[in-house]
Parts: sequence; C-alpha cells; structure tokens
Amino acid sequence: MLDHFFYPHNIAVIGATDNHAKGGFHILRNARAGFKGKIFPVNPKYDEILGVQCWPDVDAIPENFDLAIYFIPAKFLPETIRACARKGAKGIIIESAGFSEVGEEGRRLQRESVDLARSLGIRLWGPNCMGLLDGHSRNVFSFMYSDLWETLMEPGPVSLIVQSGMLSAGFLMMILERGGMGISKVCSIGNKCDVHETELLEYLINDNNTGVIGCYLESIVDGRKFLDLSRSTRKPVVVLKGGASDAGSKAAMSHTASLSGSAAVYEGAFRQAGIVPVFDVHELMDFVRGFSKVDSCPECGGTAVVTFSGGAGIVTSDLLSNCGVAPAELSPETMDALKKVFPPWMAPAHPVDLWPAVELNGMDVVYPASVEALMRDDGVDSIIVETVGWEASTPDYLAAIAALKKKYRKPVALWMVGNSNIHDVFRKTAEDGGIPVFTEIRRCVDFIAGVKRHFRKKRALLPV
Amino acid sequence: MLDHFFYPHNIAVIGATDNHAKGGFHILRNARAGFKGKIFPVNPKYDEILGVQCWPDVDAIPENFDLAIYFIPAKFLPETIRACARKGAKGIIIESAGFSEVGEEGRRLQRESVDLARSLGIRLWGPNCMGLLDGHSRNVFSFMYSDLWETLMEPGPVSLIVQSGMLSAGFLMMILERGGMGISKVCSIGNKCDVHETELLEYLINDNNTGVIGCYLESIVDGRKFLDLSRSTRKPVVVLKGGASDAGSKAAMSHTASLSGSAAVYEGAFRQAGIVPVFDVHELMDFVRGFSKVDSCPECGGTAVVTFSGGAGIVTSDLLSNCGVAPAELSPETMDALKKVFPPWMAPAHPVDLWPAVELNGMDVVYPASVEALMRDDGVDSIIVETVGWEASTPDYLAAIAALKKKYRKPVALWMVGNSNIHDVFRKTAEDGGIPVFTEIRRCVDFIAGVKRHFRKKRALLPV
Repeated sequence: MLDHFFYPHNIAVIGATDNHAKGGFHILRNARAGFKGKIFPVNPKYDEILGVQCWPDVDAIPENFDLAIYFIPAKFLPETIRACARKGAKGIIIESAGFSEVGEEGRRLQRESVDLARSLGIRLWGPNCMGLLDGHSRNVFSFMYSDLWETLMEPGPVSLIVQSGMLSAGFLMMILERGGMGISKVCSIGNKCDVHETELLEYLINDNNTGVIGCYLESIVDGRKFLDLSRSTRKPVVVLKGGASDAGSKAAMSHTASLSGSAAVYEGAFRQAGIVPVFDVHELMDFVRGFSKVDSCPECGGTAVVTFSGGAGIVTSDLLSNCGVAPAELSPETMDALKKVFPPWMAPAHPVDLWPAVELNGMDVVYPASVEALMRDDGVDSIIVETVGWEASTPDYLAAIAALKKKYRKPVALWMVGNSNIHDVFRKTAEDGGIPVFTEIRRCVDFIAGVKRHFRKKRALLPV
Repeated sequence: MLDHFFYPHNIAVIGATDNHAKGGFHILRNARAGFKGKIFPVNPKYDEILGVQCWPDVDAIPENFDLAIYFIPAKFLPETIRACARKGAKGIIIESAGFSEVGEEGRRLQRESVDLARSLGIRLWGPNCMGLLDGHSRNVFSFMYSDLWETLMEPGPVSLIVQSGMLSAGFLMMILERGGMGISKVCSIGNKCDVHETELLEYLINDNNTGVIGCYLESIVDGRKFLDLSRSTRKPVVVLKGGASDAGSKAAMSHTASLSGSAAVYEGAFRQAGIVPVFDVHELMDFVRGFSKVDSCPECGGTAVVTFSGGAGIVTSDLLSNCGVAPAELSPETMDALKKVFPPWMAPAHPVDLWPAVELNGMDVVYPASVEALMRDDGVDSIIVETVGWEASTPDYLAAIAALKKKYRKPVALWMVGNSNIHDVFRKTAEDGGIPVFTEIRRCVDFIAGVKRHFRKKRALLPV
C-alpha cells in the first residue's frame, strides 16, 4: 500500500538542516507548511530547526513514525533503513542522488538497500528524486525550494508521475505559476528502485482526488500491466516517453539508469491502450490541463473552427488535416443561424471567419451566437475557438462560451492572441469556465485529436 | 517601384474620421504619430480631425500627394483612382474589404480597378488588408488600433509579408509585446490585386534595413520567381504557407480568393529553394526572431545540448532524432573540460546534464564553462541550452553565454522554465545578447534544423 507515502501520521526528516541553501532545510520547511502530523528532524548538529526539536539520530526519536524522508549521502542508506524499521516506518522517500545512476558501486548499494528494505517491510521511493506533493492534503515532501506551494497550488484533478527530478521541479513551477489547473498528487520517482510508475498508476486510478494522470517516463516497469491499466481506466492517461529514440535512450541510461524501448514499439502500444502520447514537456502540461476540463465528447461529427482571422482558420484546417482530424460539415440550419450575425455581403463558411460579423455586431454578440449554432449541430463534436484578447471587448463572451460548453457537453479548445495583461484576464475567464487556452494552434488541434481518441476508448469500455 | 508606398512625401487619408471606433480614425492617428510629410484627411463631414485640416474630396486637396490610403466602401474605388491620378498619386493602399473575397461582383470591381490604375500609372496595394508599417521610418499606414507602435516597435531586421489582415494585426501585437526582435517592414497584402508577395520579396531582399523575411501566404503569384529569389538571397526566408491541405485550400479560397497548391508540391519546392518552411503562427514568429539573431553557423558538426534536467535532455535527444538533426560527438578534450566543473562521482555525458555540476559550483560558473567547452569543440556546430530562471542565480551567466556565442560564431537556442517575473528578466538578457529564447523544446530543435539548412544554402551561393 502506498498510503504511507501520501498520508503518513508522523514523519522523520533525515538530513534536516538550518542552512537555507540546502535541500534538507526546504524539506522541513515544506513539510511544516502543510503536513498536519508530527515531524522529527534528524541532524546531530542542531537542537532545533524552524522551532521544531531536532534529534541526533533516528534511534533518538521518542516515538514511532511511518514515513522518513532521506536527504543525506547515499552510503548511509542501509543503516538508516534498519533504524527506521526499529521505529515502525513503512516507507522511505530517498531524495539523495548517488545510486544506480552513478555506476556499478551505486547500483550495488541501491540493490542491497531494496533487498534490505523488503526484508524489513519498508517500501522505498526514489532514490534520486524530488519526492511528492499533494494539492488536497497539502503534504509537500520534497526539497524543491518554492513559496509557490502555499500560494499557488490549488487542489484539483491533475496527478503526475515524473521520472526526472529537475523536470518535475521546473515543470511544477511552470504549472503552478501558469495556473488554470488544480493539482492532486505529483510523484517524482527518480530511479524508482521499488515504488514505480505502474504501481503508482494503479494507485492514482483508484484515487478519488485524481481525474487526469500525466506521466514523464524514461522506462516502464511491468509494461504489460501499465498498458492494461491504461486500457481499462476511464481517466485520461497522458504520457511523454523520454528515450524513445536511440540517442534519447542512450541519454536515459546515464540519467536514471533506465533501459528504454524503441519509439515505434512504445507509440503503437500506447495508442492501442488508449494512452494519449505527447512529445514535449509543455505539451504534457497543456494536455493534462486541457483534459482536466473535459468531461465528455460526442460520438460522431467533426471539429468546427471559429476564428477572428481567416488566415488562422486556414492554418487550423491545414493542421487538422495533417493530424487526421475530420473538419465538421456544418448543417444548413447552422449556416442559417450564422448568417443572422453576418453582414449580407459576406456569407459564412467553414472555418467560420467571424471578423466581418464582429465588425458589424461586436464580439460579445457574435462569438456566443456562433458557438451556440455550432454546439447545436449534430455534425460538430468539438470546437476550436480562435480569438484576440484586447481592449475592444470584455471577457464576458468567453464566460458565455464556457456556459455553452457545459450545456452542450462538447469540448472546446481556445487559441488567443493579443495584449498580454488583457490576455491573462481573458484566459482566466475561459479556464475558470472550463475551456483550456493554448498558445499554439497546433496544440489546440493535437489536443482535440487526443480528446476524441480518449473518449472513443472510454465509450468502448463496459459501463460501470 | 514600391518606394512610394514605404517612403511617400505626402499622403491622403480617404475616409478619415473623428469617430474613435472606426478604422479611418486610427489610420490618421497612426500616420500622424510617425510620418514626417504632409497628411491630407478626406471626409466631407469634417473641417479638421486631430488638428489636421480635412478636405471634402480628393480634388479639393490643394497639393499633390504620392500615396493615398483608402478606407471607404469598395464601390467608390474607381472614381477615387481617377481623382488620385489627377493629384499625381503613384500608389493607393486599399484597406477596405468588399472586393474579390465577396463574390463575382467584387471580383469584377477589383479587376476593373486594377486595369484603370495601371492605365493611369498608379500601383494598388491590397485591398482587404491592414496596410504597412516600418520600424525605421516609423511610417504606420494601417487602421490597426494600437498604442504599441510608438512605445514597443523597435527598429530592426525583421520584415514580414502577411496575406491575412487580422493575422498580421494579432500577430504584430504579439511580436511587439513579446519583444526580442526589431522590426523593419511589415506588409499586409490582403487580396494583393496588384502589389504581391513576389514583388515585395524582391524589394525586401534589396532593402538594407531588412535582414530576415517572414511570410504568411495563401498563394504565390509568379511562384517560379519567388523560388528563384529565395534560392539566390543570403537573407533567411521563412514561409508559413496557408491552404496547403485540401481543407485549408478551400478555406483560403473564401478568405482572400486565393488558389493555393498542394502541400507536397509547396514543401518540396520550398526546401529546394532554401526557404525555411514553418507550419504554425507562433512558429513563424519564433523563427524570424531567432533568425534575426543568427549570423553564422559552421559547416560541420552536430548539435550539442546542455541542460539542467536529464529528462529535458532526453526529450531533446528524441526530438533531434525525429527531426533528423545529428547530435554532436563531443571530443575527449571537451569531456575533460566538462569534468573540471563536474563532481568526481558523476562523469559528464551528452546531452550534458549540468545539474550535478550546478549543485557543486553554481550556475554562474558551470553554464559558461560548459558552453565554452562546447563552443571550442570542432564537432559542435550549434548548441541548445536548457535552463531555469529562478532566484538562485542572476542572469549574468546568460550574458556570458551570449558573449561566447558572438566570439565563437555558433548559433545557440535557449529553452527556459521557471518563475515568470524572473524569467522575463533572464529572457531579456539572453535575447539582448543575441540568443533567442523559446518556450518549447521542439521549437529549439526545429529552429536549429532550420538554421543549419539555411546556412548550408548560403555557403553554396557564390561569394558576393
């Protein structure tokens, strides 16, 4: 059971320090900010840190604890595992490096530690990782330095499994700062000597706080089970697979000592299992944010495009075509409804270039009226909305589009250009209403393609 | 000659108005802000607008002018052409819509206007366009509403030819706000009934203020000449071709009445002509900004990657491999130089994951030392640098990397994550020093691939 990692009663912080430049300080600081149980810092150099009594070694801790966070040199791990066992610990998060990723000696140390921990009933998380955090419980068990946890981390449906430590750190900072999605459990698993992605995937599939699962993985332990789990879950599983090329695979070997497979093998297997594959770091972030806002997609129809720019509409058509996503065929009723907001001299077409209509009737009228016409059309299963954030309108029309999305239960992806301050207000309005905003047209297109694929798989599953 | 459009002596603004909601107001306001010659607003309803004397019709203007900007309904164009001819005009920028893009009647009006103008020695620009602007002369002949021209438009090498009006508007706002590149001539050509992309390409190739040419085009007039010009110029020509798919091509027909060709035909011809093809709007923006900062790329070698994140390095390797870009083979001397900043327990590899070295020696030491080691390596022709903008370092190391780029004349592309306020300062330091910053790893990779291709073509040209 992995509950000891996410919901421990008491924790020990082995390698806590008062030196603010060290990770051992931030582990303690982060834990104190959110964790509700008792914390036992361990370091013979201090009597107390941050007002918390400090213990010279694990054996000196006067109570049992179920989780330890380990941030001292690698070589002390075996004796620490024994000491933790004496205190009833069920799990250790090892955030230090210096194990299998540094060569034969590290590999041996890691292997022996796993064997030892198993014999003592202790699960190991890491090593060479950034630990975990939880937006709902507010537990942050990580040496990542940031004030962002307290101010920016909103609870929500997005859980992540990230093999790379620094990537999960940089990544998370971006996610939190960018906003627009709520966080459930972020798991940085590093060398994953014991707890690994497949076990975590199963845990997150059964976790009520998790609605979307995003992964950055360099290799997959028990790949068959990972695929089976992905195939049978209704939750979107979005995976960035690092080391899919020969060159990348070589790099993965020296990064987290992972043996990774070939690109073609992975991609084919992923698609068959209904996994949504992505290929870049921001793409993973954009996709999990997007999926956190989509709860349905109709069975048939194509993608409709409304835009302020004929040019952007054309580029979108090209990208939809490259991506194999069918454009919607709009019904005569839809065309009639669109005509009502268009000037007589300009007939609407698809992609629907709203600009002539906007010049006549303003964005607040034209965008919601057009999106509603498309939402009602049985030939439309999803909509890409392209707009501009500027002084000439309020963001109200985006709230109206968001309400339409909820009413008609069709996914919408938004691409927006324009002045950045205003853009941010508009973006927040859209995303608070459930419409993800992307900065690249191609991202909208790829995302809609992923959504359609995911809901196709979901419909094929037996009803719950 | 197109000089009359870019450097007129006097201009008439036909359809000027004091109504701030109308484009005719902004044309006048924009022109007044930068243009040094005389301006003659034309509108029978006003005696003066913005303090400038207004004339009831073109014939009433007491002096000759060489350029008119037209922003009244389409049907008045023929009589206006005749009136402008009587005032010695050499060019008219028609920003109104209602021509060939709205059907047979509009097509006829457009064709007749072109014939008439030709017979009177007047060149037509547009119609259905946003006009032009020039970062050096400060001439802004466009109805686009913005305060950005005065405050944010920096003179520089980037010229654009954009067929879509709204795209050029939204696009330009983004470019100017985003910063990081200087502007030469932005040409929004709309239906391009007379002045077209191929003529403008030739003009910009011969324009001393222009160093990079970016295009969004839905069709290409005189395609052979466009390719020949691209093949023989030393300036990078980056083209986003809209309507390359069947669906996109259909949309382009109704947008600017352009007959566009097939994707495969265009892409093959573009690559042969040394054109850098792009496929999305922000990609075009990123590429012209990037090319504005690159003035050389060595003949042989591969792309080196330095990163703060093993995971990001692996993703980069995968993307380089997908893109067909060879990773650099680092020499033993380079490895020895890298070892000097690495901890003894962690040997450097490629991609160079600097994190263990940064933990030991800090970013300010490790990044410049590593980049210099790579710059000295004959097996390295270009470098992708991945970093994090955060509180733990100053942006000084980016200035140091920029200096190395200038010294060794090898292109660098930077990918940065992190806290946004700090990120902006770091980004500005990098870009002011000549290193383009991108938000997607894939963009770095695609850009480096484009740079290598461009300089390969450039080397193949005869010396000047």
